[in-house]
Amino acid sequence: KRPEAGFEYLYLTPEKKARFEDGALKHVITKEMKVEGEVRHVITTIVGSEEGLGVECLKGSGLIAGETARAYEDIFTITLVTCRSVGIGAYLVRLGQRAIQIEGQPIILTGAPAINKLLGREVYTSNLQLGGTQIMYKNGVSHMTANDDFEGVSKIVKWISFVPDKKGNPVPISPSADTWDREIAFFPPAGKAPYDVRHLIAGQDTDSGFLSGLFDKNSFEESLGGWARTVVVGRARLGGIPVGVIGVETRSVENVSPADPANPDSIEQVTMEAGGVWYPNSAFKTAQAIRDFNHGEQLPLMILANWRGFSGGQRDMYNEVLKYGSYIVDALVHYEQPVFVYIPPFGELRGGSWVVVDPTINPQMMEMYADEESRGGVLEPEGIVGIKYRKERQLETMARLDPVYGDLKRKSQEKGMSLEQQTAIKNQMTERETLLLPVYLQISLQYADLHDRAGRMKAKDTIRMPLQWAQARRFFYWRLRRRLNEEYVLKRMAAAQPKELRSRGGSLKTLEAWSALPRFGFNDQEVAVWYEENRKTIHDKIEAMKSEAVAYDVAALMRSNKNGGLKGVAQVLGMLPVAEKEEVLKYLRNA
Amino acid sequence: KRPEAGFEYLYLTPEKKARFEDGALKHVITKEMKVEGEVRHVITTIVGSEEGLGVECLKGSGLIAGETARAYEDIFTITLVTCRSVGIGAYLVRLGQRAIQIEGQPIILTGAPAINKLLGREVYTSNLQLGGTQIMYKNGVSHMTANDDFEGVSKIVKWISFVPDKKGNPVPISPSADTWDREIAFFPPAGKAPYDVRHLIAGQDTDSGFLSGLFDKNSFEESLGGWARTVVVGRARLGGIPVGVIGVETRSVENVSPADPANPDSIEQVTMEAGGVWYPNSAFKTAQAIRDFNHGEQLPLMILANWRGFSGGQRDMYNEVLKYGSYIVDALVHYEQPVFVYIPPFGELRGGSWVVVDPTINPQMMEMYADEESRGGVLEPEGIVGIKYRKERQLETMARLDPVYGDLKRKSQEKGMSLEQQTAIKNQMTERETLLLPVYLQISLQYADLHDRAGRMKAKDTIRMPLQWAQARRFFYWRLRRRLNEEYVLKRMAAAQPKELRSRGGSLKTLEAWSALPRFGFNDQEVAVWYEENRKTIHDKIEAMKSEAVAYDVAALMRSNKNGGLKGVAQVLGMLPVAEKEEVLKYLRNA
Repeated sequence: KRPEAGFEYLYLTPEKKARFEDGALKHVITKEMKVEGEVRHVITTIVGSEEGLGVECLKGSGLIAGETARAYEDIFTITLVTCRSVGIGAYLVRLGQRAIQIEGQPIILTGAPAINKLLGREVYTSNLQLGGTQIMYKNGVSHMTANDDFEGVSKIVKWISFVPDKKGNPVPISPSADTWDREIAFFPPAGKAPYDVRHLIAGQDTDSGFLSGLFDKNSFEESLGGWARTVVVGRARLGGIPVGVIGVETRSVENVSPADPANPDSIEQVTMEAGGVWYPNSAFKTAQAIRDFNHGEQLPLMILANWRGFSGGQRDMYNEVLKYGSYIVDALVHYEQPVFVYIPPFGELRGGSWVVVDPTINPQMMEMYADEESRGGVLEPEGIVGIKYRKERQLETMARLDPVYGDLKRKSQEKGMSLEQQTAIKNQMTERETLLLPVYLQISLQYADLHDRAGRMKAKDTIRMPLQWAQARRFFYWRLRRRLNEEYVLKRMAAAQPKELRSRGGSLKTLEAWSALPRFGFNDQEVAVWYEENRKTIHDKIEAMKSEAVAYDVAALMRSNKNGGLKGVAQVLGMLPVAEKEEVLKYLRNA
Repeated sequence: KRPEAGFEYLYLTPEKKARFEDGALKHVITKEMKVEGEVRHVITTIVGSEEGLGVECLKGSGLIAGETARAYEDIFTITLVTCRSVGIGAYLVRLGQRAIQIEGQPIILTGAPAINKLLGREVYTSNLQLGGTQIMYKNGVSHMTANDDFEGVSKIVKWISFVPDKKGNPVPISPSADTWDREIAFFPPAGKAPYDVRHLIAGQDTDSGFLSGLFDKNSFEESLGGWARTVVVGRARLGGIPVGVIGVETRSVENVSPADPANPDSIEQVTMEAGGVWYPNSAFKTAQAIRDFNHGEQLPLMILANWRGFSGGQRDMYNEVLKYGSYIVDALVHYEQPVFVYIPPFGELRGGSWVVVDPTINPQMMEMYADEESRGGVLEPEGIVGIKYRKERQLETMARLDPVYGDLKRKSQEKGMSLEQQTAIKNQMTERETLLLPVYLQISLQYADLHDRAGRMKAKDTIRMPLQWAQARRFFYWRLRRRLNEEYVLKRMAAAQPKELRSRGGSLKTLEAWSALPRFGFNDQEVAVWYEENRKTIHDKIEAMKSEAVAYDVAALMRSNKNGGLKGVAQVLGMLPVAEKEEVLKYLRNA
């Protein structure tokens, strides 16, 4: 009677209800009521006759989400964001990890109008404020950006050119215009002067011509370049061989966090990030790059390691630097291709930053090298001198090495001097100390620094060998070519061996014996060529191993369960022609 | 002559040099020079005669780091921070993930004095500013805190009581004072009124007595409680069975980020986080909890899912909510124990937050349930009405259902009316619209809401079944007991089958046939009891399967490589006593 007063429930009359039933299928679920003799079917649930915009979509989305997460760990996945990616669309971009975002196309969870409605005011004027490239390229969700679809697709094609055609196949080696057999022309500035690490990787164009870097000219493709810029990552080629590359920015970088439009009190935050230091974001980026190279791309990895440590101030500790630093270890533990860690000339690797890339993390895959001009240790000389070689000990050194100061000290310790004499000597000593201490501080720093050289790293067996930067390209080219061939063979050998007998060390010894090459561990060029020229021989030998493995496995199975084993043998024998069966039985009788 | 002018290099005289040589072992590496007839050995590297504080420590640290990362994925790892954990010590805390921190003991990378030296001023007065519990418990590095070592160890012992004694063994079931056979007394407030989700999990003490929750009284141990408080995680027992639990805070939470002492411009940031919404931090926490429960703890998991979605404003998009949301999917993909996702009464699960916990992500392990009083769908009714049932369509409904408005509308469409008549009718219509639209908006919201009911979720096969909260404990107790028994048997069956023939579905059908129980899929109590009472029978049947598997494997191996296979058979036969061998050969001849 008073419809403006509201309603109690929605219901169907019995005739209407029949319309929503299709045999056992009920499009509407109701509860029967009787009101003044009238039968009413109160609606408790509407199912609808068609698949609609509801939980059925969410279920399908969950299915794609799970499969995409699995796919990333299994094969090469990449997303081109050519238009709005919303909600689950945005999640699929991330679950597949690699993403190229076209400028002007947002990656968002909720559209700007819906968020404005929720906030009750017009905060956002565009979806690009929420998930445009200035957000998603800056936080590392998008690995690259492109101006249009064509450029985006081109970048994907280029990316794919680094990746094996099938899972487990060797990386595709391109013909290279840049010979492996050259020195590296670019040299970083001596001391701790900052420079662009991209020059180390890819060379530098200068007024007086091109100074070549470690990798092939024009082959370096940087990714994640908008995010955490104190680390530089990308893919490059070394004599045509694809390699994942991680380098370290030596220059300071400005990190700008935008103000939050939804919070009028918030302001843009600008923080300076020093070169050669790992921050939460750059540790995360390093780990992300390692995971990307490993999963699906199956690239060998070069880390040009040049870190003084992790940033340990309150802000970065609060911002979970420990979690992201740990990601680096987690990612390296799972790496399945050769990893070369190389401290570049005038680079250094200290404390925690050494620890998280130490080859013992994954000794089968990782190798560490240090340039003859590099440094490594727990603390920098200033730090260790501050603990272990303070002023008093510097004065002891002075007493030992400086005859003037040594004499004064001896005199000061003589007995029977007058107070005056003592004071005079003390004054002379103080004068001498003031004069010489700056030099002795330098000496103590030099003394500490001499402990941080590549020679000591080698002597303590923490690196495989010291290297000279100019020759590093030649060295790594052959080392890489050898290791890639070797890993491929080792994997096939492992597959051909019974599980219980698999041993990487044993297989390597077998390969050494097969090749009969001297200095097998270090003779990379000859070993690489031997692998390549003896594919057929190696193949045959592995086939023979397989036969041995089958014999071993059959014997082990029969020993573990004689009845089951015999039943299996009987099954096979039962299928043989009589003559052949007789022959087999004869063979077995003579066993 | 002028020692204050500095030094060129450090060198050893030939006699001194001899002191640092021990056969081939050189403690100092030098380069020979001749200066005015004097032989000098310029020091280029100091190795030292003893293992010292240098790269050798870093190598050892790397080894522990890698092993700890591996250990977390393999077994139960936990760290008690009883004193300073510095540098690699801090990393080991994190690489082992689970951590209990004693108040007053910091987890740091670099000590406060060293950072002050670096910054050139006295910024920090204590290491606790860098890594005390107010930092590390708030950011989720420390899972729990304790006042002293005894309390810390007690917490570890309690934690271990939830964990299987050996990897792969069943979870330890404690005798429970709280019977499974009871209703749940605590009921959340109707509508969207906020409440403490811990009451749902563990019950509530009220003035009128204890209102029991889903899990055993006093069994809930919360962890990560200082971090991302819009999600609540911990371990509890259900009739004595350990379960990992994830619940959702429905109240708003204040998140305080401290000001950065090293940056005088920075201020404390206070942000409000709404209940029922996933933020970057709470998504990360959810994923972390899932990983912890899965790795080493091997717990079944209950997610009391009550999320409206992910926060998609600019701040949270910039703060990488997509990455952390994806972690949830990644973690669920790898889950190896039964997972129950349950939308609690008056809870809701919408859009992206449904997607990342949908059971299709890991269908073998995950099951989804919804309370009869819960809601699920893509958008909330307000959202979907704003798109699909706007004012114009509400007016159409009004024209259909309200006779007064319907008449007016029909009249307004009649031809041949004067302008005056038309205006009068329009006015009457507007009046009626103003009167009734609020009710029709309610009707449209109700109509939309009727699409979000558990009945529809079941009809669309997105949940296993709707549940009633009061009965949920009884249901989940038997479901859990059944699934845990079943998984244990299924794993043993899989291990007893040839790889090529393994099929979870097939094994389940086998179990159904073995048990011969009706309604096998749903009869949880009887099935659970059957598993427990027929351990011996099941064991024998699996042993028989093993024998079949050996037969299959031997036959397959022999077919793949006849010579190798026969060699294996011959090896075993060659070891048999003559009589037995004869018998075997006879058996094979008759095959």
